[in-house]
Amino acid sequence: MKKLKMGLVGGGKGSFIGKVHHMAALLDNHITLVCGAFSHNPEISKLSGRDYHLPDDRIYENYADMICKEKKLSEDLRMDFLSIVTPNNLHFGPARMALESGFHVVCDKPMTFSLQEALALKQIVRDTGLIFALTHTYTGYPMVKHARHIISTGQLGNIRKVLVEYAQGWLSTPVEKTGNKQAAWRTDPKSAGITCTMGDVGTHAANLAEYITGLTITQVCADLTAFVPGRSLDDDGSVLLRFDNGARGVLTASQICAGEENALKIQVYGEKGGLEWHQMDPNTLILKWPDRPKEMIRTGVGQLSDAAMIHTRVPAGHPEGYLEAFANIYRNFALAVKAYREGKSPNPLYDFPGIEEGIRGMLFLEKVVESSSGMNKWVDMKKI
Amino acid sequence: MKKLKMGLVGGGKGSFIGKVHHMAALLDNHITLVCGAFSHNPEISKLSGRDYHLPDDRIYENYADMICKEKKLSEDLRMDFLSIVTPNNLHFGPARMALESGFHVVCDKPMTFSLQEALALKQIVRDTGLIFALTHTYTGYPMVKHARHIISTGQLGNIRKVLVEYAQGWLSTPVEKTGNKQAAWRTDPKSAGITCTMGDVGTHAANLAEYITGLTITQVCADLTAFVPGRSLDDDGSVLLRFDNGARGVLTASQICAGEENALKIQVYGEKGGLEWHQMDPNTLILKWPDRPKEMIRTGVGQLSDAAMIHTRVPAGHPEGYLEAFANIYRNFALAVKAYREGKSPNPLYDFPGIEEGIRGMLFLEKVVESSSGMNKWVDMKKI
Amino acid sequence: MKKLKMGLVGGGKGSFIGKVHHMAALLDNHITLVCGAFSHNPEISKLSGRDYHLPDDRIYENYADMICKEKKLSEDLRMDFLSIVTPNNLHFGPARMALESGFHVVCDKPMTFSLQEALALKQIVRDTGLIFALTHTYTGYPMVKHARHIISTGQLGNIRKVLVEYAQGWLSTPVEKTGNKQAAWRTDPKSAGITCTMGDVGTHAANLAEYITGLTITQVCADLTAFVPGRSLDDDGSVLLRFDNGARGVLTASQICAGEENALKIQVYGEKGGLEWHQMDPNTLILKWPDRPKEMIRTGVGQLSDAAMIHTRVPAGHPEGYLEAFANIYRNFALAVKAYREGKSPNPLYDFPGIEEGIRGMLFLEKVVESSSGMNKWVDMKKI
Amino acid sequence: MKKLKMGLVGGGKGSFIGKVHHMAALLDNHITLVCGAFSHNPEISKLSGRDYHLPDDRIYENYADMICKEKKLSEDLRMDFLSIVTPNNLHFGPARMALESGFHVVCDKPMTFSLQEALALKQIVRDTGLIFALTHTYTGYPMVKHARHIISTGQLGNIRKVLVEYAQGWLSTPVEKTGNKQAAWRTDPKSAGITCTMGDVGTHAANLAEYITGLTITQVCADLTAFVPGRSLDDDGSVLLRFDNGARGVLTASQICAGEENALKIQVYGEKGGLEWHQMDPNTLILKWPDRPKEMIRTGVGQLSDAAMIHTRVPAGHPEGYLEAFANIYRNFALAVKAYREGKSPNPLYDFPGIEEGIRGMLFLEKVVESSSGMNKWVDMKKI
Repeated sequence: MKKLKMGLVGGGKGSFIGKVHHMAALLDNHITLVCGAFSHNPEISKLSGRDYHLPDDRIYENYADMICKEKKLSEDLRMDFLSIVTPNNLHFGPARMALESGFHVVCDKPMTFSLQEALALKQIVRDTGLIFALTHTYTGYPMVKHARHIISTGQLGNIRKVLVEYAQGWLSTPVEKTGNKQAAWRTDPKSAGITCTMGDVGTHAANLAEYITGLTITQVCADLTAFVPGRSLDDDGSVLLRFDNGARGVLTASQICAGEENALKIQVYGEKGGLEWHQMDPNTLILKWPDRPKEMIRTGVGQLSDAAMIHTRVPAGHPEGYLEAFANIYRNFALAVKAYREGKSPNPLYDFPGIEEGIRGMLFLEKVVESSSGMNKWVDMKKI
Repeated sequence: MKKLKMGLVGGGKGSFIGKVHHMAALLDNHITLVCGAFSHNPEISKLSGRDYHLPDDRIYENYADMICKEKKLSEDLRMDFLSIVTPNNLHFGPARMALESGFHVVCDKPMTFSLQEALALKQIVRDTGLIFALTHTYTGYPMVKHARHIISTGQLGNIRKVLVEYAQGWLSTPVEKTGNKQAAWRTDPKSAGITCTMGDVGTHAANLAEYITGLTITQVCADLTAFVPGRSLDDDGSVLLRFDNGARGVLTASQICAGEENALKIQVYGEKGGLEWHQMDPNTLILKWPDRPKEMIRTGVGQLSDAAMIHTRVPAGHPEGYLEAFANIYRNFALAVKAYREGKSPNPLYDFPGIEEGIRGMLFLEKVVESSSGMNKWVDMKKI
Repeated sequence: MKKLKMGLVGGGKGSFIGKVHHMAALLDNHITLVCGAFSHNPEISKLSGRDYHLPDDRIYENYADMICKEKKLSEDLRMDFLSIVTPNNLHFGPARMALESGFHVVCDKPMTFSLQEALALKQIVRDTGLIFALTHTYTGYPMVKHARHIISTGQLGNIRKVLVEYAQGWLSTPVEKTGNKQAAWRTDPKSAGITCTMGDVGTHAANLAEYITGLTITQVCADLTAFVPGRSLDDDGSVLLRFDNGARGVLTASQICAGEENALKIQVYGEKGGLEWHQMDPNTLILKWPDRPKEMIRTGVGQLSDAAMIHTRVPAGHPEGYLEAFANIYRNFALAVKAYREGKSPNPLYDFPGIEEGIRGMLFLEKVVESSSGMNKWVDMKKI
Repeated sequence: MKKLKMGLVGGGKGSFIGKVHHMAALLDNHITLVCGAFSHNPEISKLSGRDYHLPDDRIYENYADMICKEKKLSEDLRMDFLSIVTPNNLHFGPARMALESGFHVVCDKPMTFSLQEALALKQIVRDTGLIFALTHTYTGYPMVKHARHIISTGQLGNIRKVLVEYAQGWLSTPVEKTGNKQAAWRTDPKSAGITCTMGDVGTHAANLAEYITGLTITQVCADLTAFVPGRSLDDDGSVLLRFDNGARGVLTASQICAGEENALKIQVYGEKGGLEWHQMDPNTLILKWPDRPKEMIRTGVGQLSDAAMIHTRVPAGHPEGYLEAFANIYRNFALAVKAYREGKSPNPLYDFPGIEEGIRGMLFLEKVVESSSGMNKWVDMKKI
């Protein structure tokens, strides 16, 4: 298989997530960056592109220009897919145009600015039949894959309780007023949409809960707050959850937990046992049993599920982290594109989040905001 | 000071908590057990009393008999206080009779069967002026005392978020049907009252949150569940919390978290930093700061608050645990009785939970049950 | 069974270990303190005795006086056994006199001032047939008992490697010169003997290694150092170990590991798996296996060995600590005294360290000092 | 800067470390693989090269052929440096030829088959003036860089004690007899040299100790063992260490610690405090202080040393692992090559292990083996 050729929208100088996408794409030697529109400022776009070792004629001023021009290049030159790493309000435009121009798409989360955009995007993905990946990074970890396997094979029995917590502290003070661009767009309804923290990290938590358990959230009861004066969007929130099988849960997401780094963790309890996973200690999956010792399953140790093993690169005890989890999504996306080209079905073991997870995320945000601002105890979150 | 003489109601053979009260009372050499009514079965009461090295004439058939007869003994013989370690429905009776007979009281939690009983008991405590202690054990840990000190001295700034979780797994299956007496009375509304899990462990969690933060819960939004078929009372529940200063929180309490032992933990975040404490690792208090290393405060290391230091017995690195925390409550209770006798005010550093904490607990239970069964989002929990 | 009556030598005001012995003795309600000679200063002895609630006529000026006078009391009054909590040079005298006067003995470690004294004491114990306990506290923990069970039942296979580390930091600076009495006698050859740190903590480590593995150290190669200027005895040392089955090991003991509290830990590896235990997290025993998850065995969880279960007081998740481990030694000693009186053999499950462990400890010290000061690589440590 | 062009010797199908070198080289987009001789089997070499997306004319049958032919290519095509990932006995040959042909070299450790080869290689590196990197991966972690900074800036005071432990379990059974190629060459003196485990992991431990402390090991006293029947080389060993400033230490390295993954950890104690780092939890550096809380320094949190910050790619809480540490070595090597080309001195902050560390490692192996087989207590390990 030849390397896939990647184009990038966003990710210019000062961006964090652009470089992450690029490193993740490079790691497994399946993908190479060939072009990009890195900033709405042409000068910054140019300088950023050179940092990525791109020739000037593949550095564009904006995504529309890029898509138009790349489309005209010969197949062996032009990009094969577009990665979108811009703020939320700038996902839908490039995603739509790329898909409609025949390019596959990798998009950061939350998928779109609104649920309405998400539903429109779903239609486009369906119509074009192209591959669409959403970078809910955390489901790329081998121990998350294994957790899902443990539950789907019934080892915990019927699931009763899910606790998921995503705590960060970097928005504890109004950093958006002192030049932090990451904070600025996330706290601005014009670029972020109807939520800040729930969109930025809460959707990861909700996605993780549904992914690991295989369950669907059916009702939410939320309390969102903006603690830092001057903010119009939430910087903290907690949500009571009800799942389709009767399980109950709590999701808490916050960016004002002063002193927390990126503390995403999940606990799930079934009739027979429980499990626990912490993103900051990602190579350990804790299994808890009523009458026997707690087990620490470790990446690479013993005979794990296929799902865990094919997402692991190095032997046990050589820690794999965030970039490797991210790279798993890119690797699987690349395999799906390969299968697409060969007219084959993708191997379900090499899974990655896509349009359906994006819809779930946007629906979650809409319902959580509705719940938080209303006086009804429960708001339904039906599948759409 | 002469040793205080203790009487015990409950705690017969097969009881767990009776022995715990006794060991906790003995540890510091301030208290000696002199009498007891250990079981409603006279034979078991007698055998139990002998296990405690009591002479037969101080082993009673029931609490009423004990209180009557002890009262008639000379002061140097008769018990000084009564410890009540019976099921919830048998707290109020002996507490009232003991207080009205001039005996101080130590009572297990939740304080009473109902809020109504709690309010009546408060009146009796007030009228008699005697010492009343409620064994919310977990506030007896030195690191909990220190956590309270950290917050009350403003080191975390204004508190914004409180997450408290109390997870056990021992009620994951219907053990109440297979001879587990501890489970039987807790799951039976006749002995437990309006809740099982919220009363048994949820009140500890609520007490801990209010104790450490110094805040008052003002509103609750609860979702209680009975997962195990055949139960009429909750074995699991989660509650969104609002506090008097505007802080938000989540309390989750469960006894169906299969594989969990006695996992009480709390995280508190303020404007300046956060703290975390786990009951199962009680000698460590984690402080988290936005821009500097996390600190692990340890029992006995360095210059801690007076509140932490006076509740510590052995040097750093020699772990103190549950019995020592429990003993701190008994030791402080003993000091309060001593102060009472000497007509002095008790030293507030040597604090312990009492009638007010009991009222808060019973109010919490009433409001949580009301919330869970209603459709209003928030139920007020005003101070009474 | 009536309570055993305890006498105490040492443990006056300012002592740490005296109170620990007392609390440990009280905890299980088998023992009561009846007399003591708490200090060579009569006034301090008197005041200390009153703190222990003793009447003045049972507070003595010195151990010889106490033993003489107690011996003359009637059996229902006089002490049953003597606990010795003085510096090393003051162990042999009271132990000998007590035993020769018919009193059982509990003695702190290291057992004596010299190996010669140890051997003499062994003869006296043998001749009198009385019960002698040595407070190597750490073998009193339930998870240590269970570790020994795991190995003795062959679950790890033949043992190959033992790593034991005991790190403290409190002697990092010359605190013996600034009024720290604990440091003063330990760093003084007149009271401590031929070593400081190896005697104070190294013997615990060696005892733990032999206890858990059931192996015997046969050769040592040691490097002892006095880091703090002015010290004539070691404050740090490391020892290569060889065991009777061919296993190898390392023991490191230090009191200049600045920042360490009381960090005793052990790792043992056999052909089939390994185990790890940390004194500062005593209720967890980690089992490691080549091809399956690491297991965290926890005090009170599931069906553990009898040895673990009978040394546990409270349910899982209610941490037991140092005092409880210490109390296990006193409880088992009390049961051995009871069996002695009844002419029965003590139950080997209720074991405790005694004269043999004391001999091993003193031999270890002598050989380690010999090795450290010589140029031969290996020094034999044959059983005597 | 244009991307550096990399050639690879070894790393064919079935190799672990070849892919690791490649991923590490790719991650930062400074390096691209252009050629390789992946196996002594030409067919396997060809298939392996295609896996790396190489054209057939850049896949060679052996390193000599590769170096000859690459040398004849134009500068914009030919490789810039050679990475050597073969067994120990096949390091010196390709390293010498590459250097003498004008190619920079990255070499896996231990550097050579013997100390003699190492000294010869040092002369070649000196003569050619080319860049030589040795992949002691673990010094590439940001928290290791920071640990070195903490000590070099005197924050722990004069160093007294160093404990370094490297425990693996994968050689607990004779896997070399059942087709494990990694085990086969490591346990074979013809390919591994005079040691197995000390060379494979012990040198990492020794390198880490010297790197972090800035001290030099001056004396060793070792006990090496081959536990698994049939082995002629060590699979386990422990070494007492003495350092040039008077510090003492212990190094233990083992591959028969059944159940261990890749457990490299180090503890260092100075007069003022201590530090601890675990490779399997690499983003945490623990600082211990005598009279204040333990601090957990975390990758990316707060203002760390420049050395830590420039070796970190993603924000705090997004774990970086082994591949990122490895990539730091490649990134720094690439910067050194760039500086070389520009005639500049490399920036010492962007350091990486090189020929001197290789000499130290080989000297360590020679002295440890000498010590283990002799009867003198101490063997000198003087700088050469």
